[in-house]
Amino acid sequence: MDERVREHAEVLVDWSARVEPGDDVVVSVAEDAHELGVAVVEALGERGATVTTLYGSDELSRAYLKGAEAGADGDGADGDGDAVPDFDDDPAVDRAIFEAADAYLRIGGGRNTTATADVASETRQAYAKARTGVREARMDTDWVSTVHPTRSLAQQAGMAYEEYRDFVYDAVLRDWEALAAEMARMKGVLDAGEEVRLVTERDGAPDTDVTMSIAGRTAVNSAASVAYDSHNLPSGEVFTAPFDTAGEAFFDVPMTIDATRVRDVHLVFEGGEVVDFAAETGEDALAGVLDTDPGARRLGELGIGMNRGIDRFTDSILFDEKMGDTVHMAVGRAYGACLPEGESGNDSAVHVDMITDVSERSRMEVDGEVVQRNGTFRWEEGFEG
Amino acid sequence: MDERVREHAEVLVDWSARVEPGDDVVVSVAEDAHELGVAVVEALGERGATVTTLYGSDELSRAYLKGAEAGADGDGADGDGDAVPDFDDDPAVDRAIFEAADAYLRIGGGRNTTATADVASETRQAYAKARTGVREARMDTDWVSTVHPTRSLAQQAGMAYEEYRDFVYDAVLRDWEALAAEMARMKGVLDAGEEVRLVTERDGAPDTDVTMSIAGRTAVNSAASVAYDSHNLPSGEVFTAPFDTAGEAFFDVPMTIDATRVRDVHLVFEGGEVVDFAAETGEDALAGVLDTDPGARRLGELGIGMNRGIDRFTDSILFDEKMGDTVHMAVGRAYGACLPEGESGNDSAVHVDMITDVSERSRMEVDGEVVQRNGTFRWEEGFEG
Repeated sequence: MDERVREHAEVLVDWSARVEPGDDVVVSVAEDAHELGVAVVEALGERGATVTTLYGSDELSRAYLKGAEAGADGDGADGDGDAVPDFDDDPAVDRAIFEAADAYLRIGGGRNTTATADVASETRQAYAKARTGVREARMDTDWVSTVHPTRSLAQQAGMAYEEYRDFVYDAVLRDWEALAAEMARMKGVLDAGEEVRLVTERDGAPDTDVTMSIAGRTAVNSAASVAYDSHNLPSGEVFTAPFDTAGEAFFDVPMTIDATRVRDVHLVFEGGEVVDFAAETGEDALAGVLDTDPGARRLGELGIGMNRGIDRFTDSILFDEKMGDTVHMAVGRAYGACLPEGESGNDSAVHVDMITDVSERSRMEVDGEVVQRNGTFRWEEGFEG
Repeated sequence: MDERVREHAEVLVDWSARVEPGDDVVVSVAEDAHELGVAVVEALGERGATVTTLYGSDELSRAYLKGAEAGADGDGADGDGDAVPDFDDDPAVDRAIFEAADAYLRIGGGRNTTATADVASETRQAYAKARTGVREARMDTDWVSTVHPTRSLAQQAGMAYEEYRDFVYDAVLRDWEALAAEMARMKGVLDAGEEVRLVTERDGAPDTDVTMSIAGRTAVNSAASVAYDSHNLPSGEVFTAPFDTAGEAFFDVPMTIDATRVRDVHLVFEGGEVVDFAAETGEDALAGVLDTDPGARRLGELGIGMNRGIDRFTDSILFDEKMGDTVHMAVGRAYGACLPEGESGNDSAVHVDMITDVSERSRMEVDGEVVQRNGTFRWEEGFEG
């Protein structure tokens, strides 16, 4: 076994999930994540945890949903004349699992990132709705989501398998203690600040010059640990929930929205809302997002990527938005942890992150003071003020 | 997908487990049993069941137990100075799973039948003991155990992979309704009978001539369905719990006891107990079984194999003991279902099946009347009386 697989397991169990002796831990292992699964349960055994292992197979999920669709077509179990299956909205076993669990470790890494592509969206939605209670019980555990590097994920990233493995371990095997301390500085700046301004002036791209209020909002130091209210490994971003956005923003990192590749998004904000937009490719998909509901035209998140172990974009939001020298904004839903007690923040059915490269000819100001210029923070060597 | 995989799934879900719409079904999928897992959850979706999928990986089990051993060695979670790990004897998640489940489908088929060979037997025993409550909750569900044909099982059987697949499907894809009806005849004979005598006279092998009482005992028609109190797929045997055995029995089918190959076992019974024994190879392993406890020297089971889809021995008791033209006897524990209400029957920590080929120069009598001669039952064509 590659020693890095063991190190990944140890980071997951100790730094991220903070597993203690006697904890009841549920581990979900995707089809091709067996190797990391072995290392994780070995570490859990050593820590004195009790383990239950689920098979997190997208191919089995697809088969179940397709079977349910076939059963709903008349002569099956359902037979209400409607082609959308009826799912049990109180699944007793899964609810019992997450109510009894202290921690939930999800190890992604399937054989095909599009394994469920032919399941009708009505079926997915009906299933997701029936699982609301299970999802809530799961979110009440110390949950952490990570991925084992697989050939299918390498392919999605457009990389060779060996190269992709290096990429993942560079992102995951950080000095998290040190990064958390650095991110705490960024959080301090945002928590104390009232207004953020982001400016980029790059050749051949529209300028970004956008301001937003963050007064009264609390930033999350997303340091890949439940101790930081952070549930992804890798992580490495600081984010907050802005409002009253004004100006223009250009996002030069490609993204995928509903299986459509979207490039070079340009948004114009007035009074907190998107009043004009464009995209070089995939503009219809972008329009679909913005038209979802009123909240989809307002920002729900401003995030600063600070994980310098991530050195390229791989078409995976788990990695892309954490990359050092990037800033992202999401239209749609805001995270509750960023909001003052009792305030609901921006609400929407969507949350779509858009990323901009800030490594050159850019600056971010908080209350008029430059915090990051050309990717360098003000506490770093080489900062030019 | 091989159409037989789908048929296997349908037999498992419909004939064996009798799944109904709304049932909560837990499916455990071994490492290389993915394909059958897909077919099973698709069938369950179609029937309107709710599904939870566990990852039944022997390699993960080994890793967990080895991790626990490492943790018990001093500085880990355990630290009681004892090298045997302490396991939680009330594992909350697993107990919750089986208490909430209606049915449990175990799909075996790993990558290595000896995957846990280097785990200390004290560790296994400690784990098994801690899981007593979970096991009991699991046995209270409509549970069924089957296997997907894998390369590892083909290797154990000494067969090519394609050949082994044919073997498994011939055993599993029976006309179970018809076989259950035929086995009901055998059960009727045993339930009405008081004494069984088995005689074999074969060249170059010691003769078998053994009698046992079955008075008051109830035979199980093991027709691979929870409706028949039968929990293995394939099955295809009728078995009861004999006592007062006398005479000699020779078992010409090889078996594996604790990883030792044992061949040509010869047992001599007096007053219900084994008073002398021999084996051509593996005699020490046989002695170890017989010396376990007093009940290990008495028979706990007499079984008649009636599945003619099984045409050879594959060193797997799931298949071997069900083979047509065989009879098996087990030393050790008797099954409760065979015993009169309130009677405990033969008790032991072991239950070891030994098989004899009855296809030629043999006869089985019940109360002096021949029921099977040279493998042919008295209700079959060609029976010679």
